[in-house]
Amino acid sequence: MESEQKKFMLTAKKEENITEWYTQVIVNSEFVDYSAVSGMMVYRPDSYFAWDVIKEATDRMFKEVGVDDVYFPLFIPERFLMKESEHVKGFSPEVAWVTHAGKSKLSERLAVRPTSETIMYDSFSRWIRSWRDLPIKFNIWASVVRWEFKHPTPLLRSREFLWNEGHSAFATHEEAETEREVILNIYEKILHDYLALPGIRGKKTDTEKFAGALASYSIEHLMPDGWVLQGPDHHSDGQNFAKAFDIKFIDRDGQKKYVFQNTYAISTRELGAMVLTHGDNKGLVIPPKLARIQVVIVPIYNDVKKEEVMNYSRSVYELLKSNFRTYLDDRDEYSPGWKYNEWEIKGIPVRLEIGQREVDSKSVTTVRRDTGKKEGAKLDHLSETLAELLVDIHTNLYSKALKFLESHTFVTADYGELKRLAGTGIVQAPWCGSEDCEAKIKEETGVKITNLPLDAQVNFAGQKCIYCGKEAKHTANFARSY
Amino acid sequence: MESEQKKFMLTAKKEENITEWYTQVIVNSEFVDYSAVSGMMVYRPDSYFAWDVIKEATDRMFKEVGVDDVYFPLFIPERFLMKESEHVKGFSPEVAWVTHAGKSKLSERLAVRPTSETIMYDSFSRWIRSWRDLPIKFNIWASVVRWEFKHPTPLLRSREFLWNEGHSAFATHEEAETEREVILNIYEKILHDYLALPGIRGKKTDTEKFAGALASYSIEHLMPDGWVLQGPDHHSDGQNFAKAFDIKFIDRDGQKKYVFQNTYAISTRELGAMVLTHGDNKGLVIPPKLARIQVVIVPIYNDVKKEEVMNYSRSVYELLKSNFRTYLDDRDEYSPGWKYNEWEIKGIPVRLEIGQREVDSKSVTTVRRDTGKKEGAKLDHLSETLAELLVDIHTNLYSKALKFLESHTFVTADYGELKRLAGTGIVQAPWCGSEDCEAKIKEETGVKITNLPLDAQVNFAGQKCIYCGKEAKHTANFARSY
Repeated sequence: MESEQKKFMLTAKKEENITEWYTQVIVNSEFVDYSAVSGMMVYRPDSYFAWDVIKEATDRMFKEVGVDDVYFPLFIPERFLMKESEHVKGFSPEVAWVTHAGKSKLSERLAVRPTSETIMYDSFSRWIRSWRDLPIKFNIWASVVRWEFKHPTPLLRSREFLWNEGHSAFATHEEAETEREVILNIYEKILHDYLALPGIRGKKTDTEKFAGALASYSIEHLMPDGWVLQGPDHHSDGQNFAKAFDIKFIDRDGQKKYVFQNTYAISTRELGAMVLTHGDNKGLVIPPKLARIQVVIVPIYNDVKKEEVMNYSRSVYELLKSNFRTYLDDRDEYSPGWKYNEWEIKGIPVRLEIGQREVDSKSVTTVRRDTGKKEGAKLDHLSETLAELLVDIHTNLYSKALKFLESHTFVTADYGELKRLAGTGIVQAPWCGSEDCEAKIKEETGVKITNLPLDAQVNFAGQKCIYCGKEAKHTANFARSY
Repeated sequence: MESEQKKFMLTAKKEENITEWYTQVIVNSEFVDYSAVSGMMVYRPDSYFAWDVIKEATDRMFKEVGVDDVYFPLFIPERFLMKESEHVKGFSPEVAWVTHAGKSKLSERLAVRPTSETIMYDSFSRWIRSWRDLPIKFNIWASVVRWEFKHPTPLLRSREFLWNEGHSAFATHEEAETEREVILNIYEKILHDYLALPGIRGKKTDTEKFAGALASYSIEHLMPDGWVLQGPDHHSDGQNFAKAFDIKFIDRDGQKKYVFQNTYAISTRELGAMVLTHGDNKGLVIPPKLARIQVVIVPIYNDVKKEEVMNYSRSVYELLKSNFRTYLDDRDEYSPGWKYNEWEIKGIPVRLEIGQREVDSKSVTTVRRDTGKKEGAKLDHLSETLAELLVDIHTNLYSKALKFLESHTFVTADYGELKRLAGTGIVQAPWCGSEDCEAKIKEETGVKITNLPLDAQVNFAGQKCIYCGKEAKHTANFARSY
């Protein structure tokens, strides 16, 4: 029992050492695990379930806007990666290379997919002939490998992660541009409705954009430590890849033209953002829609009353199981206290405690994971009560996160204040648009421009850049970044 | 237009040259495509959709019997693959090896997942401590790489394919044994209900079993050319891997024991079986549940009546779209004949033709892809008519395939007859159980034992082996095999 007790323990405090707390909570709750391959992680049932819900919901919304799922090879010939110069610069330092098959040396090295642009666009160049073939809106659900040499962290910076890769091709720039909002709206809905995470939508600076893109837009998350984590994104690639891969079509006017392309992604990193945002010193707090088990029933009995309590608990389980993902914890060898602890660290949204008192009053005691609040609930409309409770938990998690984001978003035009605030949240400040100022600020304060928010609290355009004093072109969000 | 016309053409005949027909039909219908990486294929929307339906249906049934999805790393350290001697013999000749990351040489080669036993069981050995942790029933949906050096064929023998990998661990041999039927029943239901494919369930011989298993059971498909294709399978691994990876638990009696393990899989190969079985000289025939488009509407008009026919077609589309995956082919630049050809090669189950006559009679003309039969259908219960038609198409596809299987399953105890029948179907014959006879028969006739059927037409046990004349222990299915 001793080694088992350890596995559900949490000694670090989130507010004291969030890094150590994070490591303890994701592993000791059995959410994920380390693997024998350094930097690559294992998704245990609870984390994979959460990702699967996100995946299916996103996929449903993609299909509604005409996106089709496809699948492309895991391996990419080296010469393909080399075709777009910015792209190769961005990715080749992190590529895992396949050089041998069986006992044979391959004639060309193959990259294990770090992203699929190049292998896909080679096909696009053969598939797209005329304006009738456009738009193409394809998506892959895949795993990608990027051999991070910095300290890998499960979910947040893994050498392998799971994601969607959306790849579109349009006849015109204008059409390509209209896709961004459609996709980012879908991502925001997923973050809001499933992960209970707010985000800040904005444009990345040229320094921070995707390797090979003309413009990148992201949704950024503010974490409880005041650092920012990049969430889903959408990139306008213009005709960069079209030219590198010769993707041309004959337009209505008979002219051969290059297509305009976009790419977009959401990844398992969101699960890391979820853990960091909602978790507490008791463990994970999983938003109800992502919880593999939503309601856990814990019977409390002594030897005399056991049969009665267990029978009642089983009837409650039967009542709930078709409406909620319900688990009856009938393990005889553990105490109720042990069970509470286990389900708390695992972040199960609602616990039902059932003892003799509940049996006698035809009720249960509900305990919310997010607030710990206990309430009695009558059996005769228990399903309605629980349905409301789960919605309420979700809403509360989102509200708390939003309140934190709002109370940690600062606005200033003063460099001294930016320096003081650096690392405590997001600082919105005027920026002239020069990479030089961006780099100097990062060097001096440790904060970078996470994005140029689309709905900044103050529009600084026309005022003075916080660093050089020249005319500001943007309101920029400055923050330390994961 | 010329290059486009070519893409939906089919010149080979299935009954004359099934290999060439297969290659033409899967590529020219835009079902799949070759990729720039030799032996690795692209799943275009129609094939990925079909796989996704299979995946989701299988996953739902797995969950009902308590299987949880997880995800394990794509890479496996070389030393892990080496731990189980049969396993390494079976897989290492086909492993793709990662040797470098970025510019650095790795200290140990990493195998790109050919199957996940070894990386998973390393985790199992840490997760399993007591009988309370058992059974473990995990599954991954993943892509695997096996570098086939024989001629790779899309879907049938690809260097990368998609599959489920089920991995279970039980406390006792008896418990482990009960899983086989549960899983094979699920697979048979998927084959029957979704792919419209019959199969022959049976035990593999020791020569043909999974590398590292004690016993393998498979479902085999008979293809129209008389050859057999292996479908889903379930393997009893006994304690082989448990011993190699030291997966022990403390049992109720306080003793440390090794677990008993099983693995099982269904793969994208089934899509190849589906194409081969149901397709005809007009192209693919996709079973309705797997079709991304189930009903295609083709309006037929001249310039005078265009508006009226189009409006009516649109109203039919609106009527159907929430009940069926419906597509209105309103492309002005193609003739109805062109469109028929395109949707036929793509295997769309039902075509609705709508011309002036249909407008006037408030009806549509339905054309089934499987039989080509045309019928009028009134608008006022069109959804019911189509629902029945789709069920009927599915039933017909399955019946035809079953009839073929039955009429090409032969029973003999005579070696001369086995020789004559070799390659024309399945021959059930008495076998003594010796690997020697198995090998000699294969050498002399080209047929191997695909499996030992659980419901053979004749039980030959106790009679004479068809080769050596000694006592037969089994009725064996002999066939040429893909």
